[in-house]
Amino acid sequence: MKLLENKILTDGKVLEGDILKVDNFLNHQIDVALLNELGREFYRLFINEGITKIVTIEASGIGVACIAAQYFNVPVVFAKKTVSLNISTNVYTAKVTSFTKKKTYDAVISKEFLHPTDKVLIIDDFLAQGSALEALISIVTQSGASVAGAGIIIEKAYQGGGDLIRSKGIRVESLARIKSMSHEKGITFC
Amino acid sequence: MKLLENKILTDGKVLEGDILKVDNFLNHQIDVALLNELGREFYRLFINEGITKIVTIEASGIGVACIAAQYFNVPVVFAKKTVSLNISTNVYTAKVTSFTKKKTYDAVISKEFLHPTDKVLIIDDFLAQGSALEALISIVTQSGASVAGAGIIIEKAYQGGGDLIRSKGIRVESLARIKSMSHEKGITFC
Repeated sequence: MKLLENKILTDGKVLEGDILKVDNFLNHQIDVALLNELGREFYRLFINEGITKIVTIEASGIGVACIAAQYFNVPVVFAKKTVSLNISTNVYTAKVTSFTKKKTYDAVISKEFLHPTDKVLIIDDFLAQGSALEALISIVTQSGASVAGAGIIIEKAYQGGGDLIRSKGIRVESLARIKSMSHEKGITFC
Repeated sequence: MKLLENKILTDGKVLEGDILKVDNFLNHQIDVALLNELGREFYRLFINEGITKIVTIEASGIGVACIAAQYFNVPVVFAKKTVSLNISTNVYTAKVTSFTKKKTYDAVISKEFLHPTDKVLIIDDFLAQGSALEALISIVTQSGASVAGAGIIIEKAYQGGGDLIRSKGIRVESLARIKSMSHEKGITFC
């Protein structure tokens, strides 16, 4: 998606440790007008899938999931990263290893909010090694619901997580796919 | 706001430990159509304040902040609860004690995203003892920006946090204000 690629080239910064810093429009400050265009694009891509629910993971997936949900007219369910006091123990869980935070945690969704009749679109801001997306796919599958696909804002394609998940037959649509990036040579897209 | 009060009465549950469980429409599963009405109401309340930015805190404030931001046509900045690797150390911080999670953490916003010219609307889902809101007010004030007010979805008015903050001259608008609640007697609004 050209609009997004241009935004990444203009406002993104490549930091040491293979980190793409997009916190001025995506995951700290949020450009809501941009999210609206991204949400509209996810709707265009998945309009014929009979989506009944959007699933994401806290925190930075929530904004784009809610904006996209307005087009689909469905609820959002976001996976929590720890079990807090006001979630029941009646939950689906899966392990996630965070690339940027270099730690492992549980993604958790209450059994109340996923059903075998659901057709789920998973939305997230980043896809790198694919750990968060695999966890969300596992959780949706545990519930008996079907995964219609995943809508990702930025995929670090060179890390291979997206293609690994595609090879399992899951539809993954990423609005920007990064082929390579470095502080010196900048960013190229697939 | 009658729509919200009715939703709380229909779908909310009062749990032991003074917890109002609204995770089927607000902070786990999100009723995006409802958020849209809440966002519109925040816009009606703060339309004349010249808002330039909406500030919230992860995770469950992000959805409503993004939906509301569509009306104001401004960016959202969400405070993070820990310093992750891709936020610079150039940040404003304040301590928060979570009522539901019974722990203390730092709320963090990068100095890049708040400026003395900003007029900030703070949005959050819950206001009880007021710790998160006080932290966000502190962060906005540290930056030199002005706090135009706070838009809260559910205020547990009987806990006093909202009135304490109002007594300091901050405008706090809560869409539902709970006067009392218990598992036996149910919920009453102010």
